Amino acid sequence: MDYCAPVDEMLLQLEYLCNVKQLQKFNKYENLDLCTIKTILDEAAKLSSKTIAPLNRVGDKIHPRKETDQVLCPPGFIEAYEQISLGGWVGMSASQDYGGMDLPLVIGSCVNEMLGSACLSLALNPLMTQGQIEALQSHASEELKNCYLPNLISGRWSGTMNLTEENAGSDVGALTTSAVLKDDGTYEISGQKIYISWGEHNLTENICHLVLARLPGSQKGTRGISLFLVPKYLPSLNDKIGKRNSLIVTAIEEKMGLHGSPTAVMEYNKAKGWLVGKPNDGMSAMFTMMNNARLGVAVQGLSQAERALQKAVVHSKDRKQGRSQIENGTGAIIDHADVRKNLLSMKALTSVSRSLCLDTAMSIDLAKISGCPIQMNRAAFLIPIAKAFSTENGCRVADIGIQVHGGLGFIESSGVPQLYRDVRITAIYEGTNGIQAMDLVNRKLSDGGAAGFALVQELIDTEQICRHAGTMKEGSIEEFHNARLHLLNGLNWMLNTQNINERYAGATQFLKAFGLILGAHYLLKVAAKSQNLEKLELAQFYIDHILPESFAALKSACRGTKSIYRTKV
Amino acid sequence: MDYCAPVDEMLLQLEYLCNVKQLQKFNKYENLDLCTIKTILDEAAKLSSKTIAPLNRVGDKIHPRKETDQVLCPPGFIEAYEQISLGGWVGMSASQDYGGMDLPLVIGSCVNEMLGSACLSLALNPLMTQGQIEALQSHASEELKNCYLPNLISGRWSGTMNLTEENAGSDVGALTTSAVLKDDGTYEISGQKIYISWGEHNLTENICHLVLARLPGSQKGTRGISLFLVPKYLPSLNDKIGKRNSLIVTAIEEKMGLHGSPTAVMEYNKAKGWLVGKPNDGMSAMFTMMNNARLGVAVQGLSQAERALQKAVVHSKDRKQGRSQIENGTGAIIDHADVRKNLLSMKALTSVSRSLCLDTAMSIDLAKISGCPIQMNRAAFLIPIAKAFSTENGCRVADIGIQVHGGLGFIESSGVPQLYRDVRITAIYEGTNGIQAMDLVNRKLSDGGAAGFALVQELIDTEQICRHAGTMKEGSIEEFHNARLHLLNGLNWMLNTQNINERYAGATQFLKAFGLILGAHYLLKVAAKSQNLEKLELAQFYIDHILPESFAALKSACRGTKSIYRTKV
Repeated sequence: MDYCAPVDEMLLQLEYLCNVKQLQKFNKYENLDLCTIKTILDEAAKLSSKTIAPLNRVGDKIHPRKETDQVLCPPGFIEAYEQISLGGWVGMSASQDYGGMDLPLVIGSCVNEMLGSACLSLALNPLMTQGQIEALQSHASEELKNCYLPNLISGRWSGTMNLTEENAGSDVGALTTSAVLKDDGTYEISGQKIYISWGEHNLTENICHLVLARLPGSQKGTRGISLFLVPKYLPSLNDKIGKRNSLIVTAIEEKMGLHGSPTAVMEYNKAKGWLVGKPNDGMSAMFTMMNNARLGVAVQGLSQAERALQKAVVHSKDRKQGRSQIENGTGAIIDHADVRKNLLSMKALTSVSRSLCLDTAMSIDLAKISGCPIQMNRAAFLIPIAKAFSTENGCRVADIGIQVHGGLGFIESSGVPQLYRDVRITAIYEGTNGIQAMDLVNRKLSDGGAAGFALVQELIDTEQICRHAGTMKEGSIEEFHNARLHLLNGLNWMLNTQNINERYAGATQFLKAFGLILGAHYLLKVAAKSQNLEKLELAQFYIDHILPESFAALKSACRGTKSIYRTKV
Repeated sequence: MDYCAPVDEMLLQLEYLCNVKQLQKFNKYENLDLCTIKTILDEAAKLSSKTIAPLNRVGDKIHPRKETDQVLCPPGFIEAYEQISLGGWVGMSASQDYGGMDLPLVIGSCVNEMLGSACLSLALNPLMTQGQIEALQSHASEELKNCYLPNLISGRWSGTMNLTEENAGSDVGALTTSAVLKDDGTYEISGQKIYISWGEHNLTENICHLVLARLPGSQKGTRGISLFLVPKYLPSLNDKIGKRNSLIVTAIEEKMGLHGSPTAVMEYNKAKGWLVGKPNDGMSAMFTMMNNARLGVAVQGLSQAERALQKAVVHSKDRKQGRSQIENGTGAIIDHADVRKNLLSMKALTSVSRSLCLDTAMSIDLAKISGCPIQMNRAAFLIPIAKAFSTENGCRVADIGIQVHGGLGFIESSGVPQLYRDVRITAIYEGTNGIQAMDLVNRKLSDGGAAGFALVQELIDTEQICRHAGTMKEGSIEEFHNARLHLLNGLNWMLNTQNINERYAGATQFLKAFGLILGAHYLLKVAAKSQNLEKLELAQFYIDHILPESFAALKSACRGTKSIYRTKV
């Protein structure tokens, strides 16, 4: 089998890192014990490993094909998508009122990881729909909800996000797509949107576009943007598919990777749309969608790391090359210190990404169910870190994976380059990682650092647990301790720096350091709580070889703009 | 123009870093003043920027096509190759006795950088031939030299290196291709070789393969390997092309990048070959070729960094997005601190790679012309660092380049993904970067560290110059000073560690740290010697934001194998 879903690892983290049992305190989740969770994950694992994973290479080689105004997917995608929807995985986190499974995001993230590892390009389709479901549940009228949610949740219809225009990418406030109110209360949407993932395809009978557009006379910038639901086919009363709406795919991009997923240029020409949420309040609805979507992309990064890791481990146990430098060596390259270090780096970074994603998901779940503002801020703080750090790790792990394979890592038939190419987009879409970092040091510090300091306190708790347990080398605990002190200095530097551009100059490195140090915390916490020796040793490896990078990142993070604007580019 | 060759920057480094004038002390180079060098580089720049650079995308889209036993190159490659050979660039470093230009490698490297930036896949062809010329000049019989060198140097014929077999990659000693002596003194070569760059093509009338093979009864491992010259067409006396030799291309690999360059699987079936050098001494001849080839690959890494940098700078001056955070901003994304920091990182890493390549080339030139053993050891020490660090930088700079482009960076028509895909092979071929690192901490320390300590002394000299000049911030000099002390500790740790596998465990990180710290030294030295304020500020940026990574690398470098073998993969 080319991919084997890491269910045991997920269960371990759910139990010892997330303490997932705490969700059972809430009525909604009272039956969600570990045994039930295992049953759910095993089901998703079977689907991912057996049915979907073999499609990954197919979608890379046979790209979706545009024929006039439709897009035909690679062979096998229709059938695999059907299995995903039949399993209820599209609507797994959606409300039971509309046919969903009402699973917490922390479980949904495990499933999404598996689907993403199996075939990232296909898995992106339900991920987009999940975001749309979330946005409609929170912001749409009852009428829209009743009409769209059951069809989206069942997977019969799919959803997209339409933000970007040619001159409005990171700067979404610059968009010009227009919306004009009609007598019947609907709107006419006109404009061009680019980079629309799964904007057109033949997997579902209808495609529902959430489109950001401007009402006449609205304010400039993001405060003048409204959100509209614009379906490819207008819904009709008798549950049949209705009239074709005036929107069309005009091109499919030729990308570096993620070939199985059609990235569309969409043209709206007085297309019929419905307002979602209030006029000029589109960004807040979009952010509901984007927060979960950012976590979703973080999980995508993780998913590619996991698959790259698995491939590299199999290869390095199999490939014989050179003499073994260790006693009782197998003669395979896994015996070589350099290769083994590469594999352990991949493993540690993948584990850390998973922890970060699950911790973030759990925080969102707790925030949502308890309404607790502390959890809400914690979740909000973690989201940009999860998105950027986990996708960076995904790129890095895929890169190391190539190196472990040597020459074969550059040959497409090995499947190794695809992971490297596919994962690269995750550091870009849903807000580039630079945008995530700016969000972290600006909006996410606007609570005076409360969420950040609370996370630092969690590091202190972990340090105490480790000192108490006495299983970790004293020197390693000291290094973790020092990293935390440096992080705190960095956090204070950011908070004390009034000029926002001085913060921005160090944002990427600050986020990286936060991610790296959280990583050590997660590994140590899981090791201590689970009393798992393997985890302890992985934590030791991470502290020895990867954590030191956080010091370098923090140095750069707190330098401000001085040598940046003075130096000529 | 899509690529503009950085001739001024090269001249600056040749003058102030390499002190290229010192070559004029030797008869061979007495006329090689800066003015002459400029004329040479300008010529190569014109060819690269105007004729060759536009082919880069062509070769990426239209791959070489295998038709029965021949391979047809992408459109325009034949004509461009003709220009390269007509300009004398194939044989620019070869001996005048056989029609070469006898230019030092330090100039040849500048030209190779330009050709590589323009079209890496095409430039690989003359690079392979250059390696073959070098090997034949040093090891072949007069008869072989007279027959082959003029044709290789003129570019009428091309050369390849045949080392790798399916089960003999990094472990070249495992190869099984056989060579049997015939009555006429030639050999019959039989076996399969893989990953043969430009193994078959239609650019030249003959293709000359240097093939590593085993004589009957030879020792196992690398001591039983001999080197053979095996041409596609046997040479004939009348300067016409002779009989077809029994070797054939059986497949062209489908790679992640470098598509314009056909990577062949070659089958030798009792092909006629001539011994180069002594029996069972093939590795020493191969190393002559590989040393320069490794520098050549280092320059390839640099070449892609330069082109990625140029593309990113153009884009970020052009692309308007968001509000400028600085006074008198242009509104383009180059004003954003995060983007600017990315661009400066690209610029600094590219500059450092160039310095490292030119310093290494100069050292090889001086070693060769003076026979000085100190220079020989210096060159030998620098080669693995140049190869690994410069190609790592190439990958890193191409990666940052994608990020600067945002979504466009993932779209193939932008040309940005190609650089990222193409450069990735440079970290793998000519000995993976892991192999380079192991070479550094093993063979290259077998002089008791003399070459390493001598380089550390050069860092001390640079520090003194900077302190004396007083233009650099005291704090920055201190950081450079500290980095050097840490490097020295690392070097001593390596030398004092008897168990070679303990060294290997830290080899990659030790090499990285050495490269990073040499980088600061180069930037500071050029800035001080040239009294160039721009260079000084770039050095300042590098010390602030990139040099700190060396501390993290050195920590990991000196940990040994402990948490590597104990931890389960």
